[in-house]
Amino acid sequence: MRARALPIETGGEAMVFMHEDCPVARSEGFRARARVEIVANGHTLLATLYRATGELLADDEVGIPHSLLDRLSLEDGEELTVRHPQPLSSLSNVRGKLYGHRLAEPGLQAIISDIAGGRYSDVEIAAFVSGFAAQPVDVEETAALTRAMLAAGDRMQWPADRVMDKHCVGGLPGNRTTPIVVAIVAAAGLSMPKTSSRAITSPAGTADTMETMAPVALDIPAMQKVVEREGGCIVWGGSVNLSPADDVLIRIERALDIDSDAQLVASVLSKKLAAGSTHVLLDLPVGPTAKIRNSQGADALTHLLETVGTQCGLKIAAMQTDGTQPVGRGIGPALEAHDVLAVLGNKDSGPADLRERALALAAGLLELEGTSRNDARAAATSLLVEGHAEAKFLRICEAQGGFRTPGKARQTRDIVAPRPGRIAAFDNRRLARIAKLAGAPQRAAAGIVLHTRVGQMVERGEPLFTIHSESRGELDYAYTYAARNEDVVRMEAP
Amino acid sequence: MRARALPIETGGEAMVFMHEDCPVARSEGFRARARVEIVANGHTLLATLYRATGELLADDEVGIPHSLLDRLSLEDGEELTVRHPQPLSSLSNVRGKLYGHRLAEPGLQAIISDIAGGRYSDVEIAAFVSGFAAQPVDVEETAALTRAMLAAGDRMQWPADRVMDKHCVGGLPGNRTTPIVVAIVAAAGLSMPKTSSRAITSPAGTADTMETMAPVALDIPAMQKVVEREGGCIVWGGSVNLSPADDVLIRIERALDIDSDAQLVASVLSKKLAAGSTHVLLDLPVGPTAKIRNSQGADALTHLLETVGTQCGLKIAAMQTDGTQPVGRGIGPALEAHDVLAVLGNKDSGPADLRERALALAAGLLELEGTSRNDARAAATSLLVEGHAEAKFLRICEAQGGFRTPGKARQTRDIVAPRPGRIAAFDNRRLARIAKLAGAPQRAAAGIVLHTRVGQMVERGEPLFTIHSESRGELDYAYTYAARNEDVVRMEAP
Repeated sequence: MRARALPIETGGEAMVFMHEDCPVARSEGFRARARVEIVANGHTLLATLYRATGELLADDEVGIPHSLLDRLSLEDGEELTVRHPQPLSSLSNVRGKLYGHRLAEPGLQAIISDIAGGRYSDVEIAAFVSGFAAQPVDVEETAALTRAMLAAGDRMQWPADRVMDKHCVGGLPGNRTTPIVVAIVAAAGLSMPKTSSRAITSPAGTADTMETMAPVALDIPAMQKVVEREGGCIVWGGSVNLSPADDVLIRIERALDIDSDAQLVASVLSKKLAAGSTHVLLDLPVGPTAKIRNSQGADALTHLLETVGTQCGLKIAAMQTDGTQPVGRGIGPALEAHDVLAVLGNKDSGPADLRERALALAAGLLELEGTSRNDARAAATSLLVEGHAEAKFLRICEAQGGFRTPGKARQTRDIVAPRPGRIAAFDNRRLARIAKLAGAPQRAAAGIVLHTRVGQMVERGEPLFTIHSESRGELDYAYTYAARNEDVVRMEAP
Repeated sequence: MRARALPIETGGEAMVFMHEDCPVARSEGFRARARVEIVANGHTLLATLYRATGELLADDEVGIPHSLLDRLSLEDGEELTVRHPQPLSSLSNVRGKLYGHRLAEPGLQAIISDIAGGRYSDVEIAAFVSGFAAQPVDVEETAALTRAMLAAGDRMQWPADRVMDKHCVGGLPGNRTTPIVVAIVAAAGLSMPKTSSRAITSPAGTADTMETMAPVALDIPAMQKVVEREGGCIVWGGSVNLSPADDVLIRIERALDIDSDAQLVASVLSKKLAAGSTHVLLDLPVGPTAKIRNSQGADALTHLLETVGTQCGLKIAAMQTDGTQPVGRGIGPALEAHDVLAVLGNKDSGPADLRERALALAAGLLELEGTSRNDARAAATSLLVEGHAEAKFLRICEAQGGFRTPGKARQTRDIVAPRPGRIAAFDNRRLARIAKLAGAPQRAAAGIVLHTRVGQMVERGEPLFTIHSESRGELDYAYTYAARNEDVVRMEAP
């Protein structure tokens, strides 16, 4: 059989096509949606087979999406073999978990190694994710899952023996503390090589926000150079292969909207361990429209994170924070960057809540590293107030390729209060949706700016928030949705 | 957007393609593997979106596999709309089941109706199947699932108020009792309109075997005419839309190799109810390489089948049978048909075990209908021995379009005993695999013929079984596998 590149993009899903009259498919008994193994140049790839019925392919060709050809180091037209895959023996462990058996570490490692190697279909991954959601998972299993996910990817190394890290579990719009925390901690002389993600379902990831102020797509040697010079960095983690199984699991968990504390803990901790971190502070926003809905859930998660993290050799603490409303004013990459710069510059326009959270997290990291609580808070505050954090941040930006000023959107439109009253609550999820409809994160300057906080009194006609867009179409789109969802900002009678 | 037919066949999976530069996909924020809703001509279809990157599509085209165009009653080039789907509210019931909540009937009906309507992705179906495997399911839930699956499809009606049916749970190679049982029961004057399946993973389904003796692809009016004239029929059920959700669930259960008694019971009973049956006898083969491995499992399943079946208004009984070795001699459509005809003709070559099972099942149905046990067995036996069953079978074949003699394969090769000994066991699964490698069921005359039974003594070089194939290539393929898997027939020292 010969490879034939197909001009399609499957988002990482392994699918191949063979002609319905292909003699190999017939004699091997390959049916539509069968799992097949492609072998070429010493690489193997498990894929789902579909049939081509017309002139898309010759009957001795195997159609392969071009992105998958790279995974096989294969060129269009080259020879390959298609065969029945060996049964995946690790699937019996998945079935065992579904039927209520405990998973031992070797079984978990076999599963995770097969998932990271692309050998599980989405349906099989869904069964694994479901098993962890449906059956109790104990601390030992969670720790074993963490180690298995760590073992399946690369691991970064740093010259410092203490490597600081922070992570926010479950997004909260505008919660862009990372650039401020890294600046303070690095200004304190500690090492904090931070890799951050781009937005997946949110209007901005830390990497998107940071990118409006400096380049973030650094490879590992470039990142190491920045950290060597400045102690800290804020770069995009996407070019690094840390915990590859986690990315796959997250995609299926998101599709099903199910997760388990065990998988959340293993996901977070395996990535921190793979990044070479030794001291990790976790930010857990708790609120009715946040990922963690109540303090019971937060307490259980805190306990599991701290226990498993400690077992895996981390100095770790989790901090429960207010998740009832967005943080700062801006929601969207550049709008959040303006908030970050205002806090770093000690401007009056710097949102007090963003400043307070960043200080608490920075102090928490200093404390985790050994400073007393009072000294840690005082040190973090003075590094910010005296301008050391801002100076450090600008030097980090320079080291990453040069500071730039985040942009401003061309089109804006206010959403005003329909009646006088007191702000009772924000719906974080629908606010995020409005910011995305306005163009965030693809258009860096798009998003929304909030003008009110919970508890505040407003008059009829007073602006509640402003939509920022780069085009009239996107502005209208976001405005229409916002106007139809008046209760995104819930108001009570004055 | 305009529809563009793509020459691919996805085996029922709903996938569509849009160009990466498509402005609609960009402005709506559709990512690769997003779920999208296609609207055209008043039909809607939920599908998974993939991207085309080259010249496969124009950027205002939506590429749709041609088989899916039919589901939308859409022609190549016609207008359609692509939009974000409404969230599937029934998914919260799936998550509830995973988290251990009982599923009430309305929740189950919403799930099954969405699955039958093609609104669940494979990943979502996998989570549903996993939930039923991982959490306890009680009798009420099983009955509710049965009714929900029944409600999601068509239901057949018959003039007789007593409609006999039989079903074998979990295949056993060669267990082709149905044509014999239908012939005896119809010869006894009862109504038995049997719809059977083609092979999915086995070397022969009842419909495949029957097709070597008479046409089986009858539509409902034609089937009704046969039953009106002869009391019974044996036709392919594939042209009838009975319990459509079941076909979807079975596909995912098979991919995961997981199932639950609840889903098995609902699957079997919903199809029997949809076929209009009132009296159902179930054949449960029990053996180490059968679907039901031991008598404990068989007892639990028998209890659940009988309780739920009775709740759903059926007269029902389950009969546990020997599942330790194949039934009859032939494995493969025509080879099994030869066994069936030999039993019906009371020939010496008629396998005794096939005859005995068919008689037991036919007598079981007569007993279920009200005859005493002794009378039922005597009646079934005399109908067979006196030739009434054979005559009825031939008349049914004529009514279905004409009897024909099953063919014989051109190539055969023996597998012989490597040493003298006693036959200890057969591996049903690998015997089935050899028959499939030989060409069954696509080549009707292909398969294997067994020459020994468990307990029998054989000499070195004595034939254990013969492989039948239509081509030299298939014969060699099956022979090589059989020679490499000597322990398919396990032998003990004499």
